[in-house]
Parts: sequence; structure tokens; C-alpha cells
Amino acid sequence: MTTLAMIEAAAGRLKGRARRTPLLNSPFLDEIAGRPVWVKPECLQHTGSFKFRGGWSAVSALEPDIRARGVLAYSSGNHAQGVAFAAKGHGVPAVIIMPSDAPALKIDNTRALGAEVVLYDRANESREAIGVTLAEERGLTLIKPYDEPLVIAGQGTVGLEIAEQAAEAGITHADVLVPCGGGGLTAGIALALEAKAPSLRVRPAEPEGFDDTLRSLESGTKQANERLSGSLCDAILTPEPGDITFPITSRLCGPGLAVSDEDALYAVAQAFLRLKIVAEPGGAVALAAALLRPHQIDAPAVIAVVSGGNVDPAVFARALEKLDV
Amino acid sequence: MTTLAMIEAAAGRLKGRARRTPLLNSPFLDEIAGRPVWVKPECLQHTGSFKFRGGWSAVSALEPDIRARGVLAYSSGNHAQGVAFAAKGHGVPAVIIMPSDAPALKIDNTRALGAEVVLYDRANESREAIGVTLAEERGLTLIKPYDEPLVIAGQGTVGLEIAEQAAEAGITHADVLVPCGGGGLTAGIALALEAKAPSLRVRPAEPEGFDDTLRSLESGTKQANERLSGSLCDAILTPEPGDITFPITSRLCGPGLAVSDEDALYAVAQAFLRLKIVAEPGGAVALAAALLRPHQIDAPAVIAVVSGGNVDPAVFARALEKLDV
Repeated sequence: MTTLAMIEAAAGRLKGRARRTPLLNSPFLDEIAGRPVWVKPECLQHTGSFKFRGGWSAVSALEPDIRARGVLAYSSGNHAQGVAFAAKGHGVPAVIIMPSDAPALKIDNTRALGAEVVLYDRANESREAIGVTLAEERGLTLIKPYDEPLVIAGQGTVGLEIAEQAAEAGITHADVLVPCGGGGLTAGIALALEAKAPSLRVRPAEPEGFDDTLRSLESGTKQANERLSGSLCDAILTPEPGDITFPITSRLCGPGLAVSDEDALYAVAQAFLRLKIVAEPGGAVALAAALLRPHQIDAPAVIAVVSGGNVDPAVFARALEKLDV
Repeated sequence: MTTLAMIEAAAGRLKGRARRTPLLNSPFLDEIAGRPVWVKPECLQHTGSFKFRGGWSAVSALEPDIRARGVLAYSSGNHAQGVAFAAKGHGVPAVIIMPSDAPALKIDNTRALGAEVVLYDRANESREAIGVTLAEERGLTLIKPYDEPLVIAGQGTVGLEIAEQAAEAGITHADVLVPCGGGGLTAGIALALEAKAPSLRVRPAEPEGFDDTLRSLESGTKQANERLSGSLCDAILTPEPGDITFPITSRLCGPGLAVSDEDALYAVAQAFLRLKIVAEPGGAVALAAALLRPHQIDAPAVIAVVSGGNVDPAVFARALEKLDV
């Protein structure tokens, strides 16, 4: 169970390691949204997403002799890079199990960050079975992407920063929209804000058709997605809310928001034009909701987390085509 | 004459107004450059460039009754937006004189930031004559883009931040590469570092064919550019070094570096891929030099300022095509 004390301890371990990302805004975005919109750009974090925080939090908390044996993660995306870079920073091995059909760039990047990449055949092999075998053989510690209290604590440091930066900016009441996959970032921020800025309410943002958390919050019980692919928002497509994250989001979050892929691309384009940041579609769903779902928001201001920027150049170019300039 | 005291006073006036932009890095950029590369992304500043700092510094230093009458600037680019936004923040009028053939987006943006835009015909009218008439009629104060001590002082606050952030990151010796047009940013940073971090040496970066400062530093006397257009690096095409800036850069800067438009686009693409920031070509020339001119650099590390991100989406898409992913 993640607590405020764990988040603050993670912040201590991340000090001087994670970037304190700024809080950005633009009068042009305010005009689109009809209210002040603030953006917390975690795309500017090491490895291009907030995942570095959770990875570092977990790796840094291991007992030194356990950590020295190395860590293991399953991921084709941002969590892989976050864990790989965290392990590299500690000088310990990282093994990342990735599907053999993952984009070559992601495999190369993960290797370039010092990790050993073990490829598996999605159709015929179980990554869990491979992982268990490797972990036993080498004494590796599995770092789960979201259903892990130390990872949630690391992501929660985003919430500590939001609380401080909102106070500095004079933001007293706001909805804090957070891109939500398994819910680690959402839960972590919600826990931090519960303690540090209770008038800032977290609401998860998801892709339409993959709005498991939205439906779970509505119904009060965990709901699964029907599909696991078919959206540009690949970073946040998960089967269902986590066993650890859902009780937290269920207790603390306001209603979810869902946007289409086209909405996400619109937000990617506006983030380019007005904030000069690179957002990936999944990382931009909260900003998309802020800009395009104003009638589903009552709060006087919005803080939208942009959770990552690891976007394919061709997808980014497609977003730019939305700009009528 | 700009002094450290003026820069520190400007920093005081900018506190809570300008963004303290972070210092970014990536192991991938280090590998390309063959040495640690740090990036100061002023594209993340208000209005998408460092120009807001100089604009705010100058506007905020005016006597209140003078300021209330309003300010005036000539610019089709980043200085226009910086001054307009600074005037808006003070609640005073801004008049920006822009060529009638300036991109509609830049005219619209400047108006949207609250400025009155006065268009002139480049071929048949003198913007200076229009400016003098308007200034006399309305009592407006002209804010020059670089040859103005208060503007240089504002840009110098980037140097104060670099000195602090370099110390935090443990960077003791480095070349600080700065995109250079008229030299306001280069001179301001050089003055700040002379006082605060003398082992960080400033070197101007320019587009090939528009390397007036490089040649002026070499020869010891001001050299002009032959042309004023014909580069993608529109933000930093100026006729020659400024009368106020050149004595400063001449005294404090190391040799200039020049890069091609294609080099600048390469740096724009790498900044997208590895740092998740949006750089404009002119704003990326220092990063381009860091990545592509390693043999012209002796320092153990490089800090490259990315000075702006106001780039046409079509130009940005062209840069993305350079990525083999």
C-alpha cells in the first residue's frame, strides 16, 4: 500500500536524478479550453516519460545485494526505457522482455540504455514464463509497471511537484487530468494531492474504447477493455485497472474522461504549436480532454499531465497536418 | 552598458514571470557528440523563445508613467511576441510594426497577445519612419531587439540560470554554444558567466552564409552579412553584430561556429527524438554545432542553448524526415 510517506521517500531518492518538469501554459490554450489550462510535461522527463520516476523509485529501494543481481521488466514501451535507465544509473543489469515484433527503434533504444533485451514470440511464448525462468536463474527482481507500491510512489512525485507548482502559480482549485493506463501515475498523483493539495482533484483520461478506468469508476467495480490494440495511444492500453491502483483511484478520483485518437492528435499538435513540447498521443489524452471536453469539466482551472513523448515521427507528422497554418 | 548588477536586477523583475527552463540531456546526444551535451531549452519560455526575457526586462524597467503610454517594436518574429506578451503582462499597449508579407500566423499571434500590429510595405515604406511618427504621436517607447542594455540584461538571466544549473549538474568546464543573431542573448549570457562561472566559455553559433559574428570575432572588427534572407534560420538573420553587443562578445566569447540549414534541421530532429522539445532551425544551430562539429570543440562538455521553437509545421515535418526510424 503506497502512502504519502513512501511518495516523499521516493522524492528523496529521486532528488537530483529525476527532472523537476516545469508547469507550462499558454493564453492560446486557455482560449480554446475556456479556462486556464496548465500542463505538466513529463515528456521532458528522462527517457521521455514519467516512467523513469517509478523505475528509479523501485530500483533505488532494493537492498543493495538484491539490486546488484539485476532487475527485470516486461514492456515494449516507456516502462522498459524507464527501468533500463534507472538500472543503468545504479550500475546494475536490466533485462527487458519485449515482443519480437516491437518497433526496432524501441528495441534499439532499450539496448542503448544498457539493458539486455530478451525477445519473445507473442503468439507462441509466454513472457511471464520466460520472466520467471530468467528471474530464478539470475536472481533478478521483477519491476511491475504499475501494480507495485514503490512504482506508484515514484509516479506520485509528479503529484508533489504539481502541489508545489500550483501553489506558486496561485492555482487553488482545479481538476488534474492524468493519462491513465494501469493507473500507476493516476493513483500516485491522487495520493500526493490528497495530502498536499486536496482542492486539486484527479480525473483519469483515457482513449475512447479503452476507457476501463472510466467505466470502473462509474460502476464501482473493475471493468476490462474489450481490446488491447487499435489505438494510436499505445502507451496507455492496458487490460483493466490494477489491483493496487484501482482502490486508490476509486477512493480519490473524479469521473474519467475519454477522447478519440483524432482528439489526441489535435492535442499533440497544440502542444507542439503553443508549448513547444513533443507529446505522444497516449500522453496527450488529458490535454485533449482539457481542450475538447470543456463541458465535462466544472473546475475553474485544469492541470493536464502530458505523460510521455515517445512518438513515431510519422504519427507526429500526421498530427501536424491538423494545424491550419 | 549592461553589467552583472543589471542582469541580476532583471532576474529580480523576471522572478515568477519568466520560466526557469530546465537543463536537459540525453545519452543518445552525448554519443553523437562524443562528449556530454546539455541543452538549455528556451523554446519552452513564454512565447516560445528567450525574447520574452529581454522584452519583460525592458518594459518592467520603464518609469510607470512612461510605460503606461505603451511600447513599440519592429519585428516579424520572436521579439514581437516577447514584447507583446511583456506589455500585456504590464497592462500597457504594445504596437508592433511588421512587414505586410509576414506570415499570417505570426501576425495573428502577435495580435492575439494583445498587440496592435501596424503593417508596412517592405518595398516602399520605412519601418523606422513609421515607428518614429507613431512613437512621437503616442509617446511610445521603442524596445530594440538586441542593441539595448536592458534587453541584454534580460537575456543574461539565461546565463545566471546556466551557471546555477551547471554547478548543480557538476559541469565545471564547458563551451556554452549560443544561437547568435544580433548578439543580445550571446552577450547577456557571456556577461553573466564571466561573473558567475568563468570556466564556462560562450561561443556564438550561426547559419553558414550568415556568420557575421564569427567573422567579426576573427577579424576583430564588425563584419556584415551579404544577404538577409535565404536561410531556414530566419530567427537569427541580422545585418551585422550590434554596436553594444559586439564589444561584449568580442571581449568574452570564444570562436564562432557555423552550420548549414541541413545541419540545423538535423538538430531539430534530434531535439524532437531525444529531448521531446520543439526547436526552430535558427534556435537549433548551437545544438547542431555541438552534435556535428565535435572537432571544432576542445571543451570536455557542451551546453547548447536552444533559443526558440516558433517553427512552421511544414519545416518541422521536413526535419522529421531526417529521422531514419
